Amino acid sequence: MKKERGLLIVLSGPSGVGKGTVRKTIFSQNDTNFEYSISVTTRKPREGEVDGVDYFFKSREEFEEMIKHDKLLEWAEYVGNYYGTPIDYVEKTLSEGKDVFLEIEVQGAIQVRKAFAEGLFIFLMPPSLSELKSRIVTRGTETNELIENRMKVAKEEIELMDAYDYVVENDHVELACERIKAIVQAEHCRRERIAHLYKKMLEVE
Amino acid sequence: MKKERGLLIVLSGPSGVGKGTVRKTIFSQNDTNFEYSISVTTRKPREGEVDGVDYFFKSREEFEEMIKHDKLLEWAEYVGNYYGTPIDYVEKTLSEGKDVFLEIEVQGAIQVRKAFAEGLFIFLMPPSLSELKSRIVTRGTETNELIENRMKVAKEEIELMDAYDYVVENDHVELACERIKAIVQAEHCRRERIAHLYKKMLEVE
Repeated sequence: MKKERGLLIVLSGPSGVGKGTVRKTIFSQNDTNFEYSISVTTRKPREGEVDGVDYFFKSREEFEEMIKHDKLLEWAEYVGNYYGTPIDYVEKTLSEGKDVFLEIEVQGAIQVRKAFAEGLFIFLMPPSLSELKSRIVTRGTETNELIENRMKVAKEEIELMDAYDYVVENDHVELACERIKAIVQAEHCRRERIAHLYKKMLEVE
Repeated sequence: MKKERGLLIVLSGPSGVGKGTVRKTIFSQNDTNFEYSISVTTRKPREGEVDGVDYFFKSREEFEEMIKHDKLLEWAEYVGNYYGTPIDYVEKTLSEGKDVFLEIEVQGAIQVRKAFAEGLFIFLMPPSLSELKSRIVTRGTETNELIENRMKVAKEEIELMDAYDYVVENDHVELACERIKAIVQAEHCRRERIAHLYKKMLEVE
C-alpha cells in the first residue's frame, strides 16, 4: 500500500452507549496502528502518570493560552479542571502517517468537526433506547429522575447523528470494534485520498 | 444491525490486474452475503449451464429489445454475442437486502456509473506497472507488440480511476479481498444510508 497521511478517527455517541469499552477493546486487540490522542489537562498528575504519555499536564494559564491561540481541537471544563485535545500533537502524528484515535463526548466531536472537517466521524449507537436505558441503570445507583434526565440528553445527542460520517451499532462490543476497523481500512482506500499516489505510477514508469 | 437495501458493488480495473481471481476468491471464502450478478447473453448455453443460474439466455431479438427499453445496466458485443447486466435482476436482489457483486471491464463500469450512480465502484490497481506487465506476460504467449498494446490500454484504463469511489491495491489476492469486504462493511455503516433507520427509534420508543 502506498504511504499517505494518517486519519483522525473520532469515536463518539450518546452517554452510556459504551464508547470507552469499545475504545479499550480496540487498543487491547493490538491489530491496528492507531495512536491514542493524548489530552491536555490542568488537573494534577496522579501517581504513576507520565507527562506526554497519559496526559500533557499544563497550568490553567498555559491552557487558557492554548484556547486563545486556537491550539485545541476541542476542550471542556469538568469538575474545576480543563481537558482538551491539542492540535499540534494530532497534526504531528497524522503527518507521520499514523491514524489518531479520539474518543470524546458528542458536543466535543461537534467542535472537532468544525476545526477538522476531514476527520472520520463515527457515531456509536445503542441497538435500542430501552437497551441504552438498561445500560445506564446497570452502571450506577442513580435515581429515576437522573436516569430520565440522562435518557433525555441521550435522545438529544442522537439527534446530532447527522454531523457524523458513519453510524456503528454497539450491539456487541467485538462486532462494533470490527466495524470501526473496517471503516478505517475502507477510508484508506478512498479514491480521493489515494488516487494521486497511484497516478504517479503513470508518470514515473 | 438494521435492515436496509443492498449495495451494488462494482469491481473493475485494468485488464490483467486480476479481477477474476479476486472475485472468485471472495466467493470461495463464503463469509459474505454477496449475490453474484447473473449476466444476460445471446450465446448458446454450454452443457450443464442453467438459465437463470449461469446466465439468462436470450435471443438476439430479445437482447436488442432489452437495449432499446433500457433494461441493461451495461452491455457489450464480444465475438459475435451480446453480454449484459440486467437491471431488473439487480434491482430485485438489492430490494431483498442483498449486496450484488459485479465484476466487469472498466468501460462497462463507466456505463454502470451513469445508470446507477449510488453503486459502490471499486478500482482494482496493480502495485506497479512493471508488475502488471509481468502478469500480462505470464498469462499467455503474446508478442511484444501485443503486450505493449495491452499496457497502453491499461494505462488509459488507470486514467479512468477518478470515476470510482475506492482504489484497492492487488498486491496480494487475500489482502485485496479483505479490503473489498471492509469497504462493503463500512459502506453499510455510512450515516446517509442508515441514519433514518436509527432515527425511527426516537419516534417509536
